[in-house]
Amino acid sequence: MLPSGFVNLILCEKDEVRDDDSVMITGVRAVHVREVLRVAVGDEVRVGIVDGPCGIGVVTTIADESVELRCRFDAEIPPRPAVDLLLAVPRPKVLRRLWAQLAALGVGRIILTNAFRVERHYFDTHILSESTYRPLLIEGLQQARDTRVPRVSIHRQFRVLVEDELESLCESDRRLVAHPGAARSIATVIGESAAPQPPRAMLAIGPEGGWNAFELDLLQRHGFELVGMGPRVLRTDTACIALLAMLHETLRRT
Amino acid sequence: MLPSGFVNLILCEKDEVRDDDSVMITGVRAVHVREVLRVAVGDEVRVGIVDGPCGIGVVTTIADESVELRCRFDAEIPPRPAVDLLLAVPRPKVLRRLWAQLAALGVGRIILTNAFRVERHYFDTHILSESTYRPLLIEGLQQARDTRVPRVSIHRQFRVLVEDELESLCESDRRLVAHPGAARSIATVIGESAAPQPPRAMLAIGPEGGWNAFELDLLQRHGFELVGMGPRVLRTDTACIALLAMLHETLRRT
Repeated sequence: MLPSGFVNLILCEKDEVRDDDSVMITGVRAVHVREVLRVAVGDEVRVGIVDGPCGIGVVTTIADESVELRCRFDAEIPPRPAVDLLLAVPRPKVLRRLWAQLAALGVGRIILTNAFRVERHYFDTHILSESTYRPLLIEGLQQARDTRVPRVSIHRQFRVLVEDELESLCESDRRLVAHPGAARSIATVIGESAAPQPPRAMLAIGPEGGWNAFELDLLQRHGFELVGMGPRVLRTDTACIALLAMLHETLRRT
Repeated sequence: MLPSGFVNLILCEKDEVRDDDSVMITGVRAVHVREVLRVAVGDEVRVGIVDGPCGIGVVTTIADESVELRCRFDAEIPPRPAVDLLLAVPRPKVLRRLWAQLAALGVGRIILTNAFRVERHYFDTHILSESTYRPLLIEGLQQARDTRVPRVSIHRQFRVLVEDELESLCESDRRLVAHPGAARSIATVIGESAAPQPPRAMLAIGPEGGWNAFELDLLQRHGFELVGMGPRVLRTDTACIALLAMLHETLRRT
């Protein structure tokens, strides 16, 4: 299956890169390079190593099932995105659509959690298995020209997560929780910080129907500040994209 | 088929509303009201009339195929969203996903256009026919609690559209064009305006691969200012959602 996005960078696993920095790509990626990018021998394509550096690959051979590249990789590895997402597990159909888009927008960590309004059967889905979501994350990174795969963890106990696990999962300078009723936007809340460096931020987004009062209270008692995004009620995936984009934009400006 | 979003407001067509403001809803909406909202006689649900006011409906009868509501409608009709979208026709698969999300985010007008990097077959799809997209727009409005259906027009000649038609299609105080390379964000560009009233704005978003030089030049000569959104290359649908959300947010703040 070809990815639904455009491949703006071809990601290889570390063990695909030979000692001389040549790579033989196969499968979907090879099809894409041949049929969508329509490369010829000698052409250059953007490449990257999963959780490693980006670089440039020169096409050396094109075969039916594979394309070979001679690569030069950058010395530096792109920084991990400065935003982490705490997300109540959405419906499988919605989550399927989200993986690639989350990776494309850039998140350091995706922390999926249970919540009162998360239906139990949302957990019984292959969408939550790494073999399903990893290729989708890679697709998003290839779209966005990033190499840093978001780290994913799944938590069935919201309270244990917030009280005991969150601190060690990710260091965040700011914690935000999206709440339909909240008056202040991300830009307003973050803008009030006078940090000299763009801080790391964690954004919590609730289930369809929102966090319940207990959950919202627990989050606030653990440093999450309420942020709103206007009067319209958005689907989880739309809200995730909108809020992550705004948070990145705000962090770039500070 | 049930909508993929949640129905936060039940939209009726004008001719479904009887003289006494009662409404008999049928089909997918009735199924949703019965099985997802799980209403009983006497319960209240949010209702709205397409391009008309919102209101509250009290459930009076529940039958197998229909639900009857006695409604009270607001005196005021919600304002048309202050943002218009000029969008190079995306791939059918991407556009199918976009309709509901665009309506949910709020757009006054969706102007779909040809462009150099739009493939010709993108026009030969039922996704561009009103009978396909209107239910998806309604779905987005029901999610976001709005009644104003975006007006849609489709243009095969980009130059004619920009030079001759755009002016009469929508009055915009500001025109913006998204361009990967652009340094200034929406907030920066709009923030420079000292308008006392939140202005209407039109946002142009190009095809996968971007506008070509001619198109970008033509847009700029017709008042479109370049806006960027950071270093990551996003899929058209992700970019649309991110940029529309940021534009709305910026207009709310000005």
